[in-house]
Amino acid sequence: MSSSPSNPAVDFPTITIVGVGLIGGSIAAAVNQRKLAERVIGVGRNAVKLEGAIQTGLIDEATEDLAAAAAKSNLILFCTPVDRIAEGVLTAASHCRPGTVLSDGGSVKESIYAAIGNALPEGVHFIGAHPLAGSEKQGFEFSNPDLFEGRVCVITQQADDDPDAVERISKIWRQLGSSVVNMSPRAHDEALAETSHLPHLVASALASTLRESNRDFTASGFRDTTRIAAGDEHLWTAIFQANTPALIQSLDRFEERLGVLREALADGNTQKLQQILRDARLQRESL
Amino acid sequence: MSSSPSNPAVDFPTITIVGVGLIGGSIAAAVNQRKLAERVIGVGRNAVKLEGAIQTGLIDEATEDLAAAAAKSNLILFCTPVDRIAEGVLTAASHCRPGTVLSDGGSVKESIYAAIGNALPEGVHFIGAHPLAGSEKQGFEFSNPDLFEGRVCVITQQADDDPDAVERISKIWRQLGSSVVNMSPRAHDEALAETSHLPHLVASALASTLRESNRDFTASGFRDTTRIAAGDEHLWTAIFQANTPALIQSLDRFEERLGVLREALADGNTQKLQQILRDARLQRESL
Repeated sequence: MSSSPSNPAVDFPTITIVGVGLIGGSIAAAVNQRKLAERVIGVGRNAVKLEGAIQTGLIDEATEDLAAAAAKSNLILFCTPVDRIAEGVLTAASHCRPGTVLSDGGSVKESIYAAIGNALPEGVHFIGAHPLAGSEKQGFEFSNPDLFEGRVCVITQQADDDPDAVERISKIWRQLGSSVVNMSPRAHDEALAETSHLPHLVASALASTLRESNRDFTASGFRDTTRIAAGDEHLWTAIFQANTPALIQSLDRFEERLGVLREALADGNTQKLQQILRDARLQRESL
Repeated sequence: MSSSPSNPAVDFPTITIVGVGLIGGSIAAAVNQRKLAERVIGVGRNAVKLEGAIQTGLIDEATEDLAAAAAKSNLILFCTPVDRIAEGVLTAASHCRPGTVLSDGGSVKESIYAAIGNALPEGVHFIGAHPLAGSEKQGFEFSNPDLFEGRVCVITQQADDDPDAVERISKIWRQLGSSVVNMSPRAHDEALAETSHLPHLVASALASTLRESNRDFTASGFRDTTRIAAGDEHLWTAIFQANTPALIQSLDRFEERLGVLREALADGNTQKLQQILRDARLQRESL
């Protein structure tokens, strides 16, 4: 099969997905279902898993050779842990043809843009993306072609980014079913510190507060509140470390809120407690 | 219909449920489904709602007159907010026949036992119960006869409690599908401070940390972690205020865990972060 566009309706005839886990696998499934590419190549470090992804029809081709895949791709999506994205982009970029777009699915952005800098060849662009969908589950076995349907996907953009590349990445995420929001890498990281990284930190602290003798007394409240603490510690440590200043700012705000609750509790201030819990309820109900 | 036992298999021929909301309604539904009573009376302050509960077949009779219902009941279950249970028990008890058992479904216990003290008439017993099941939803419309199936129900017990009454309450909760755990009111309150009241406090603080401009960037992680913050602020303020010392102790432990995470984050201590997140994951996975 040729990698040149035989179907003019397809923006990216050959798409390479680096890291075929839950997100990468779900992108592959959604691309297949919506016929957004002619060929999907999976790149990974585990040949047995990649073979499984071929057998389930998720990808057409599997390789451990990123350079070889890059040379024949129109779009390369890095769905690896955040601390491996910039390195992968830099490795792939030198093998790409002009016009190739590189993107990702990572939960942090500024550190990735900083590590890539101005090192990409002429005509090869990196445009960050972050679909706000996921799960504490891992592995392409949980792939879901509708995972991005109705979700927000942030497409990050810097002043000097190629507008055509930004538009093409925005378009494919709309085709995957998402609402696209464009913002700067820094604005993305500050927002996600509050809406994703802080909740993970808090859920982990809460899970680790539980004493073994009390396990039998947990019900759905505890379980829901700590569900995300079941996420992989390596992935999340990398996210926390790539967004530390914004995360610490969010943690400061959270601890300030917790302090207000503690004070109202210690003071026996019924009215204040009710007011804080009411505000929190309305905030939650607005989502 | 007579209130004397015509079916010897039924321990409590007439059961009164005070507060026909989600928990009270689900008990009624489960009692009906399992044929554990001959008659279920609903007591509440809202005649229109009670009429609705009759029409859906949840209860056989409705009244706003607790004393009248108490006089003809074998078991009275208080499913009202925790700050109204002791008062209701004391009001009902003086109208009960000897042998009547009073119980509840509240999330705190020690303060209720303290308020009841030794004020019950001879032969009338209060035995606390707390089914560890629930939802942020309210109202009998959400009643579910299987809500207690496979859940833990704590039956609280003090040294001088009537063993026969304890056994009868334990038995009906087993019949409703729950695993019964007997413990003292204080041990219950300390355990639940950690497994239920602290998570609620934390979820509320987290929900109130969210700035409006970031609402669009919440995904399932934020939503799960804050789900219980949608609970009613009056119910939860009453729970917090009835269990303040134990809740503050749990909050101290949580903030200590959060402090360890903050320090590892600020120090850029990858190994420490991974270790804490790993422990939290294992803790969560053990549930």
